[in-house]
Amino acid sequence: MHPGPTDPEGARRRGPGRPRGITSEGREARERLYRAALELVAERGFEATTLRDVAAREGVSAGLLYRYFPSKRAVLLALYDELSAKLAARAARPRPGTWRRRFGDALRTSLAVLGPHREALRSALPALLGGGGEGIFAPATRFSRERVQGVFSEAVRGASDAPGELADALGRALYLAQLAVILFWILDRTDGQRATDELVALAERLLAPIALALRFQRGRAALLRVDALVRAALLGGE
Amino acid sequence: MHPGPTDPEGARRRGPGRPRGITSEGREARERLYRAALELVAERGFEATTLRDVAAREGVSAGLLYRYFPSKRAVLLALYDELSAKLAARAARPRPGTWRRRFGDALRTSLAVLGPHREALRSALPALLGGGGEGIFAPATRFSRERVQGVFSEAVRGASDAPGELADALGRALYLAQLAVILFWILDRTDGQRATDELVALAERLLAPIALALRFQRGRAALLRVDALVRAALLGGE
Repeated sequence: MHPGPTDPEGARRRGPGRPRGITSEGREARERLYRAALELVAERGFEATTLRDVAAREGVSAGLLYRYFPSKRAVLLALYDELSAKLAARAARPRPGTWRRRFGDALRTSLAVLGPHREALRSALPALLGGGGEGIFAPATRFSRERVQGVFSEAVRGASDAPGELADALGRALYLAQLAVILFWILDRTDGQRATDELVALAERLLAPIALALRFQRGRAALLRVDALVRAALLGGE
Repeated sequence: MHPGPTDPEGARRRGPGRPRGITSEGREARERLYRAALELVAERGFEATTLRDVAAREGVSAGLLYRYFPSKRAVLLALYDELSAKLAARAARPRPGTWRRRFGDALRTSLAVLGPHREALRSALPALLGGGGEGIFAPATRFSRERVQGVFSEAVRGASDAPGELADALGRALYLAQLAVILFWILDRTDGQRATDELVALAERLLAPIALALRFQRGRAALLRVDALVRAALLGGE
């Protein structure tokens, strides 16, 4: 039994010209298949999972599944979209404070949002870091990426010690620092990844020398230089 | 035509009880198959390469290949062994100077050694970062890992500003910083990865605030804390 865009009722309500899959049955079917795909990726790994297996497990035709997710890549893109939206919503009203403290808050929120998907993310790491279109720096993921970057930019811009015209560059640097922490968390072998929690708790102290350096012309120049390199190397000049 | 441990001449010279593959023909065959495997990995990607394809390309039986490399993992382990030995040899006599400058030198040497294998490393990134036994933090790679760590520890210990009892912790931190730079280099989309070269050239300046922080008790305590977390999380308590 699968409700969704193939049933005639749904098709009639949708009417001609209306995109497929936006009826509530369509949304439900899409959501169910999406969750099933993520579960299978978490169990078997991204490489070993096929959309055919997902369809079989849910008892739907591969054709129906492909209508919602034409490729495994589409599942990852949907996950990126879902998680970045959650992060943006939960981090919408940051506490007042220094940028270091607000960065720590944003980092904790980010890890809390990713938490339930650690296994899926671990197994998709190759794809996320790879050259394919589903990678964290690929053009196709730009919308989600900028949503996440926005959270870290806002942590800097609204801070009590916001560094003026450096705010954008610092926000991007903290966004990348976040990715490094996420990688650390995925690789973290301690129980419940408690080493990562402690690392985040230390973040404020670790960033103190950087905050100090940014008060001086040489430190500011170094940040701008690194920012230019990062944009050229990873973000394709964004 | 393949010389090596299967030919009766080689077997006779080797004598009973002598491990296979250490005759000069055996070494040559192993070397040839190893290079062919790396080439194929660079062309097709680590996941898509099978040892059977490597054997076919070199016109040897799969059985002969398996004798030298029982799995793809064994090829990666051999690569890690080769590259870590090269790095240790080339970095054996570091220039005198501060630890920041010596770190920059070690980093440049490391990237020069890895350079010819960038495509193979990129495609093996999942395996290198994954939970399998060929990962950069897996027990099976401990010997090679410690050889590389040794280069970075030595950069600190022999420096004009060696930070006494912190040298080991700082050496490990710089070893990890090196891995982050290698990841950046693998992802770097600029021509000839010139952004990475510039980043390395900037390294001395970027580390200045850290060097300053390490002169104070709080900075030293933070480094030791981070070192303990890294060892627990990534190195399995090494």
